[in-house]
Amino acid sequence: MPAVCDPAMTAASDLRLACRSAHPDGTVVDVRGVAVGGPAIVVMAGPCAVESLTQLLAAAAAVKQSGARILRGGAFKPRTSPYDFQGLHEAGLSLLVEARARTGLPIVTELMDARQLEAVSACADLLQIGSRNMHNYALLEEVGRSRLPVLLKRGMSATLNEFLHAAEYVLKGGNDRVILCERGIRTFEPSTRSTLDLNAVPMLKRLTHLPVIVDPSHGTGHAWMVPPMACAAIAAGADGLIVEVHHDPSRARCDGAQSLSPEVFDEMMRAVAAVAAAVGRRL
Amino acid sequence: MPAVCDPAMTAASDLRLACRSAHPDGTVVDVRGVAVGGPAIVVMAGPCAVESLTQLLAAAAAVKQSGARILRGGAFKPRTSPYDFQGLHEAGLSLLVEARARTGLPIVTELMDARQLEAVSACADLLQIGSRNMHNYALLEEVGRSRLPVLLKRGMSATLNEFLHAAEYVLKGGNDRVILCERGIRTFEPSTRSTLDLNAVPMLKRLTHLPVIVDPSHGTGHAWMVPPMACAAIAAGADGLIVEVHHDPSRARCDGAQSLSPEVFDEMMRAVAAVAAAVGRRL
Amino acid sequence: MPAVCDPAMTAASDLRLACRSAHPDGTVVDVRGVAVGGPAIVVMAGPCAVESLTQLLAAAAAVKQSGARILRGGAFKPRTSPYDFQGLHEAGLSLLVEARARTGLPIVTELMDARQLEAVSACADLLQIGSRNMHNYALLEEVGRSRLPVLLKRGMSATLNEFLHAAEYVLKGGNDRVILCERGIRTFEPSTRSTLDLNAVPMLKRLTHLPVIVDPSHGTGHAWMVPPMACAAIAAGADGLIVEVHHDPSRARCDGAQSLSPEVFDEMMRAVAAVAAAVGRRL
Amino acid sequence: MPAVCDPAMTAASDLRLACRSAHPDGTVVDVRGVAVGGPAIVVMAGPCAVESLTQLLAAAAAVKQSGARILRGGAFKPRTSPYDFQGLHEAGLSLLVEARARTGLPIVTELMDARQLEAVSACADLLQIGSRNMHNYALLEEVGRSRLPVLLKRGMSATLNEFLHAAEYVLKGGNDRVILCERGIRTFEPSTRSTLDLNAVPMLKRLTHLPVIVDPSHGTGHAWMVPPMACAAIAAGADGLIVEVHHDPSRARCDGAQSLSPEVFDEMMRAVAAVAAAVGRRL
Repeated sequence: MPAVCDPAMTAASDLRLACRSAHPDGTVVDVRGVAVGGPAIVVMAGPCAVESLTQLLAAAAAVKQSGARILRGGAFKPRTSPYDFQGLHEAGLSLLVEARARTGLPIVTELMDARQLEAVSACADLLQIGSRNMHNYALLEEVGRSRLPVLLKRGMSATLNEFLHAAEYVLKGGNDRVILCERGIRTFEPSTRSTLDLNAVPMLKRLTHLPVIVDPSHGTGHAWMVPPMACAAIAAGADGLIVEVHHDPSRARCDGAQSLSPEVFDEMMRAVAAVAAAVGRRL
Repeated sequence: MPAVCDPAMTAASDLRLACRSAHPDGTVVDVRGVAVGGPAIVVMAGPCAVESLTQLLAAAAAVKQSGARILRGGAFKPRTSPYDFQGLHEAGLSLLVEARARTGLPIVTELMDARQLEAVSACADLLQIGSRNMHNYALLEEVGRSRLPVLLKRGMSATLNEFLHAAEYVLKGGNDRVILCERGIRTFEPSTRSTLDLNAVPMLKRLTHLPVIVDPSHGTGHAWMVPPMACAAIAAGADGLIVEVHHDPSRARCDGAQSLSPEVFDEMMRAVAAVAAAVGRRL
Repeated sequence: MPAVCDPAMTAASDLRLACRSAHPDGTVVDVRGVAVGGPAIVVMAGPCAVESLTQLLAAAAAVKQSGARILRGGAFKPRTSPYDFQGLHEAGLSLLVEARARTGLPIVTELMDARQLEAVSACADLLQIGSRNMHNYALLEEVGRSRLPVLLKRGMSATLNEFLHAAEYVLKGGNDRVILCERGIRTFEPSTRSTLDLNAVPMLKRLTHLPVIVDPSHGTGHAWMVPPMACAAIAAGADGLIVEVHHDPSRARCDGAQSLSPEVFDEMMRAVAAVAAAVGRRL
Repeated sequence: MPAVCDPAMTAASDLRLACRSAHPDGTVVDVRGVAVGGPAIVVMAGPCAVESLTQLLAAAAAVKQSGARILRGGAFKPRTSPYDFQGLHEAGLSLLVEARARTGLPIVTELMDARQLEAVSACADLLQIGSRNMHNYALLEEVGRSRLPVLLKRGMSATLNEFLHAAEYVLKGGNDRVILCERGIRTFEPSTRSTLDLNAVPMLKRLTHLPVIVDPSHGTGHAWMVPPMACAAIAAGADGLIVEVHHDPSRARCDGAQSLSPEVFDEMMRAVAAVAAAVGRRL
């Protein structure tokens, strides 16, 4: 691939498994029957953190109704302050299992440490490695030995070259089901929580065969910015989205400011479907 | 406007003329009969630098044919090195006038210094202030006294708050026809020339009534990234695009790597039209 | 402390243990008899990675001779590419124990995962948490329960507020012996590996009671820049340094370009001693 | 010079006049009898903006008494908002002439536009090009034709390569008396106004023969950080400093938060003198 030889990507020359040339036609990752990376755009949605069964089911039912294919929800929450809500841990995992049983939606949830792998694997259909752990190579090696697919989020200041090498760690372990997620990078601009870097979408699609999705919730930090940036992500060529939805954002225990209400999520899905059609994709 | 009161935007509290609340319905800027900021997406296209009449007319005819409404071309080129091609200066302006006469396309071209205002004003229909001069307040004040509309590009590390205040300098001078242009910011990522910041589009549309366009050519630095990022910009809500097109990019005297051939530009315009329709706009 | 109330630091308001007001006179951390944070500047030095007993002892003897008080050396190496040398692991730890026995220098070495804690604790006198793991909260909580002091390096794009909260995670676990290390941040500037941010030194010294040291090796990536930046760090108020030294940098298995030879390290120590005296400190 | 061939500096290969190899021994710039770039550290100090004769003389007398060799003061002030105080313009220049007559201190002051060159040149001994105008090539060419030395400040997001090319613009015009000034770059860190990048000092000293000074006032934005960062700058190898001093910072019309009182400036000068001696320099 010419882009692999781009001067800015010289260190990428030792990518063996993640580079586009390893699978020129692109990889489709199966998540309990949902194909990510194929012609259909896949939307993952749900609350930032699992708070209660009522809260989780409210979000799950709503996002399923609007066309989401995978349910997101955090049981282990990495938080800047040790005094902030850290998630319900194992109890949260049980609630996710219950939500899957009731809705049929596969589950994506984050693990922060290798020791959580067993418990999370017993529940999740897609293992999320968060931004703060993209450089946690011990954890990457561990999920590389898992039988479950992995959603790998870009580190807050990771170059695309580093991001692809993080994926290479997982692939090298024998797990060839990795989905990449752009979620915003750190810049000087203070009006948004992060700077969602949509340039990453076409660049990654050129450099690697892995599916690429976008998180406009963390990428902007403002609920009102999520719909236009979700549409922009699909127009740029993303294979999917991961979006925070809460049935009552004003009462969310974390990330309420960037969580969509079910009504706004439903409107967003209609807009996303129109843009997907315009670029030859579908929901 | 609530967003003006956003904590990250506190310094914006003294925006009097550029803030959205000054014209809640939005401003439409007329450029020699072309309305920027209305329902129609406006595409400005042409070569980075005016090199010759042949080169300019080849690009102008092609971009007009594909649906561009305004012709871009640089006669005064700010270059990092004093040994690089600096543009044809007054001779370049004359060629732009000739291209307008032949195609009917209005002209946007850059001026770098107040002393160039008279010559550039005699030729241009839209005065471009480039990224490197967004903080050049003497120049902003000068174009604020002009009768011509102004295309103001965001500085490479300008916050949106600073960008809006730069617009305020022009508006304060009495010129209420300002178009803002996001063109990429400087980050740690080396694989692209700049990091095109599409978050700026919905944020600026909320904070100001001025039209907002996007430059995916400088924002990415790679011709192959321009079409997907152009589509993404429109999906995010941009009012238009400015794109570099050269009839033979491999021989361009500047920015060849990010210039589209007429064929690729034509394909891009079809894709942009589809996305525009999906978000309720048209070319 | 007024700075804690600085608008840019509002999120710091929930710092309970790491904030300066918790110990206004400053904390001195004892590392097997070496006091870090007191009047004496402490220099930690040694190879990036432990490669062999010969290599380790050559560096250890040299840095001790020149005045270093603690020996650094990596047994577990986080590397961008999975195909790069990852360290000697347990065998490397054994070599560090041997080097301590022969030189009497306490050992600082990195752990990347909670499961390495037992093995590393059996060898190390100071547990290093690297930049890539500053946000690894599971690991921070684990070392918070350790009886050993912790050297916590700033994440590559961590704000000082986030850095202090990472320290708070360790302190909250009951371990009050934390040393902070500025090691360079990620910016747009390509001529250095990182941008060593010496502003962090006076700012951290104001915001927290914990000792602050500086790593000019990773912070610049160029061996020839290490001596002047080491002097600058001490002039800015740092309590110590951590520096990479290799007896033959051109043959180092990692980070050779930023490793000092013993001769240059010795010259650096003389320069550092002079600057330390100028600011009322000593080696 | 090997560093010129550093991969990160490839674009620097066309530096002809600014590169170190053009004057391997370094250039000493004479500013009305004050040698910048020689063995002595030169401190330029004074108020951000000239406000009144009383204010200017109070600062001038104080900084001279403490050892400053050049008086700074702005008559033309680039401000983010058009509604902020923009300086006294020509009246401010007259006050600077008066202050020079009374104290004998040479004057450094900023010009923002080529049309101000004649008036500023009639007063100044050193022409300042501010950060916002580092990329203003028309202005750089203009001061390149001046008989006066130029103080060129690094742009807020300028790479060192771009900074050196900006100097090349001035040198190419025939003016070989250019002093470079590091003044802080834009990063993600919000606790300081800018991130003073002291790495620039040794890197620039290696790449160019021009003198390099540092502005810790703009580089940090906090008066209490200026003394330690000034000491760090000298330890890193800077040839001088430019520091904001106001006789009553709480009443300054701009930049009060980063301005030193005469008392603190005097203490700073003693500390700087001690560090200068430690690195083989003197005030």
